[in-house]
Amino acid sequence: MNFKMIRYTIGFILIFEALFMCIPALTALIYSERAIWSWLICITLCLITGKLLALKKPQNTTLYAKEGYLIVALSWIVLSLFGAFPFIISGAIPSFIDALFETVSGFTTTGSSILSDVESLPRSMLMWRSFSHWVGGMGVLVFIIAFLPLSGGNNMHLMKAESTGPSVNKIVPRVKKTALILYTIYFSFTIVEFILLLFGGLDAFEAINIAFATAGTGGFAIHNNSLGDYSSYLQIVITVFMLLFSINFGSYFLLFTGKIKESFNCEVRCFLLIFITAVSCISINIYNMYGNLGEAIRNSAFTVSSIISTTGFSTVDFDKWPEFSQTIVVLVMFTGSCAGSTAGGIKISRILILIKGISKELLSMIHPNQIKKITIDKKTIEHETVRSVNVYIVCYLLIFTASIIIVSFEDYDLITNFTAVASNLNNVGPGLAKVGPTCNFGFLSVPTKLVLIFDMLAGRLELYPMLILFNRHTWKK
Amino acid sequence: MNFKMIRYTIGFILIFEALFMCIPALTALIYSERAIWSWLICITLCLITGKLLALKKPQNTTLYAKEGYLIVALSWIVLSLFGAFPFIISGAIPSFIDALFETVSGFTTTGSSILSDVESLPRSMLMWRSFSHWVGGMGVLVFIIAFLPLSGGNNMHLMKAESTGPSVNKIVPRVKKTALILYTIYFSFTIVEFILLLFGGLDAFEAINIAFATAGTGGFAIHNNSLGDYSSYLQIVITVFMLLFSINFGSYFLLFTGKIKESFNCEVRCFLLIFITAVSCISINIYNMYGNLGEAIRNSAFTVSSIISTTGFSTVDFDKWPEFSQTIVVLVMFTGSCAGSTAGGIKISRILILIKGISKELLSMIHPNQIKKITIDKKTIEHETVRSVNVYIVCYLLIFTASIIIVSFEDYDLITNFTAVASNLNNVGPGLAKVGPTCNFGFLSVPTKLVLIFDMLAGRLELYPMLILFNRHTWKK
Repeated sequence: MNFKMIRYTIGFILIFEALFMCIPALTALIYSERAIWSWLICITLCLITGKLLALKKPQNTTLYAKEGYLIVALSWIVLSLFGAFPFIISGAIPSFIDALFETVSGFTTTGSSILSDVESLPRSMLMWRSFSHWVGGMGVLVFIIAFLPLSGGNNMHLMKAESTGPSVNKIVPRVKKTALILYTIYFSFTIVEFILLLFGGLDAFEAINIAFATAGTGGFAIHNNSLGDYSSYLQIVITVFMLLFSINFGSYFLLFTGKIKESFNCEVRCFLLIFITAVSCISINIYNMYGNLGEAIRNSAFTVSSIISTTGFSTVDFDKWPEFSQTIVVLVMFTGSCAGSTAGGIKISRILILIKGISKELLSMIHPNQIKKITIDKKTIEHETVRSVNVYIVCYLLIFTASIIIVSFEDYDLITNFTAVASNLNNVGPGLAKVGPTCNFGFLSVPTKLVLIFDMLAGRLELYPMLILFNRHTWKK
Repeated sequence: MNFKMIRYTIGFILIFEALFMCIPALTALIYSERAIWSWLICITLCLITGKLLALKKPQNTTLYAKEGYLIVALSWIVLSLFGAFPFIISGAIPSFIDALFETVSGFTTTGSSILSDVESLPRSMLMWRSFSHWVGGMGVLVFIIAFLPLSGGNNMHLMKAESTGPSVNKIVPRVKKTALILYTIYFSFTIVEFILLLFGGLDAFEAINIAFATAGTGGFAIHNNSLGDYSSYLQIVITVFMLLFSINFGSYFLLFTGKIKESFNCEVRCFLLIFITAVSCISINIYNMYGNLGEAIRNSAFTVSSIISTTGFSTVDFDKWPEFSQTIVVLVMFTGSCAGSTAGGIKISRILILIKGISKELLSMIHPNQIKKITIDKKTIEHETVRSVNVYIVCYLLIFTASIIIVSFEDYDLITNFTAVASNLNNVGPGLAKVGPTCNFGFLSVPTKLVLIFDMLAGRLELYPMLILFNRHTWKK
């Protein structure tokens, strides 16, 4: 294990975090907030620690897959720990665990909050919450790869460990250029959404916050009732952008380079099919509650888009919807969206591989001598990938089950426990019952919050980095 | 597909069902019940249909895996359809769907009932319910293999398709002899339990019913409050026997032939470890409810034994237990017991293979060049088995999810829907909330009952036979 290289990379992460903090610091300056001092302290802290760690460049800069996973896991933990300091120092969130929960929820683009009164936070803190979504959505290491000549040619392992989905395809042969293209698409879409939100009457501060939170499919809002007061125009814009950020960014690259057919691949088609089916079913089911098909469709489309993209914004209290609609909402929490997007959940491509695995197994029982391969978009899925996806689901179930057991000590109802874990492991935000869209996670005990913090990180980093971090073989010489 | 052989075997199944029905018919005779006429009609019906189907022995008696699965799926459906007639004809359960639900619940050893007043049933009907548990527990095709010279040497596929667990090991080289040994162990244990129950003060009728229901890990009781009124002695005897019937019958064969170390294999050790851990945790958690450690342990041990063995007897209303204990109860519903026993659920051996798969995957990430195999009891688990277990879990999740969606149309709470599906797919019996241990399934709508009937069959036959039955490739020429 190349521990020197791990230390060195984490140093850079902290230097970049100092850079990220300049944005809320600027906000504090603009609005003349007292919190400016907290930001200056935290920026200095990140810079000094970062510089110390990255002082000496290791001679051996080789990174293998295992270092990739470990760097990603440790980076995100360090990022969250330092990211929590501004909340603590400024007194906005005095409790360390609560501040950590909020920061992890930000970077992992979960959006579950411990705050009951978001509106009382200084604007710079709101900006930090939203901006952490934006950074976490595409990935901080991908950011570093894009903008820093970190090491030779083995950044692929870092990118693989931080990106979402069963297999990472480089858009262009060079990893650095791939990362740059991804961030360019990401940045452009965010700008377009920001402008459209301005047209809808939001002020620049609110528009930028919501654009950041949508882009990262995070879900932190700046009002206590999330987006409940937003106009239909704003709701529709956000619905569309939540969907756009749920689609593989590689597809956009294909689209912009004229490969329209390739961009509209099997995963994207299935994703849209699931979305449309879910919206239709829920619209019919909740029609009576709103008495107006337009409103039923708008609320249903917004909620499904918010949950399937694992953003977690809310305009209505879907905890009051009929059981069938609630079930659909809970199920799309699990499916999540496309691989290679900023969304969480299991991912449509994994589900596709799993379902095709069943067909293959059944067919091999019916015709034992026929050799059959799993193909998606006419490409054969390698045996390695199929196995890895299968193991992924088992890991997922294991973490889910272990979390439920620990959380059940709280003695809240099964629905609260189940959806709290589901919502955080899938990086959604709200659950049902006591953690429904109108509630928050502040009332939970410290052990439960720690479990949910682990779940959010495991969900965002797609399990393996966190499991490798806690595996005894990793630390053996 | 050898359809002639399928028809022929199903004919035999019906002839055997006529034979099975002689036991409740005898009960009706002893207690001079009017229901005797229903039994005679049904026996005649089964005999005639069976004889007609098995009239002509096919020239080609070859059975491949696919025929094995199809025969098993169709046999169990036919068995349940004809098994429901006595309830309908006698008027004990006038509704066809209800009678079918009760019969499927019997044969699949689920034990979930649509009856609110079990005590009003004629004794012959109670006997049929309990006896269907006993037949279904070890398997009706295994029974036929044991006692009938059905065909040459390819009965292994039938046995494989009907037995539980990821891989079926023949105890002795010949399939027929294996089946005979299994039924001998099964029969002997049932007799021993019957005698011990007589000692506890039960009359012969009640003792035989409870012995049948325990042996098959079914759970139909003959009182409305299940076993709530039973003495501590009886509860302990039943607790022990539920556990005994949850252990691989192959282990008993090894034990009786002096291979003590081999009989106490990894799966059995894990099963007992899970049992002891669950009982300990729940005992501490419910201690305050009973104020007496002995009572807390007895209730906890009985409930965990009943649920992990997927029997489903109840002595207390665990729906009133604290959330942590309820969560443990729900989780052991899913684990189930050992492969090759009469119990349902996912099975410990599958869970072992899955968890070892995770370790292997993580290790191969940390040490990519090291070749690692999954071993249990120092035996390498074949790649085929590992893949099949992985696909099994995906099928399981898929059926579970689809069932939840359909059941959620009922508009009952998520806990009711979730535990109703979990309980029936794992062949347990009771769930929580509206389908808790003091409730029944009678109030559900017809579509929900049909879904649960499918789930019970899919659970007992371990998914693949039911999926093959509904696969379009099966029926293609």
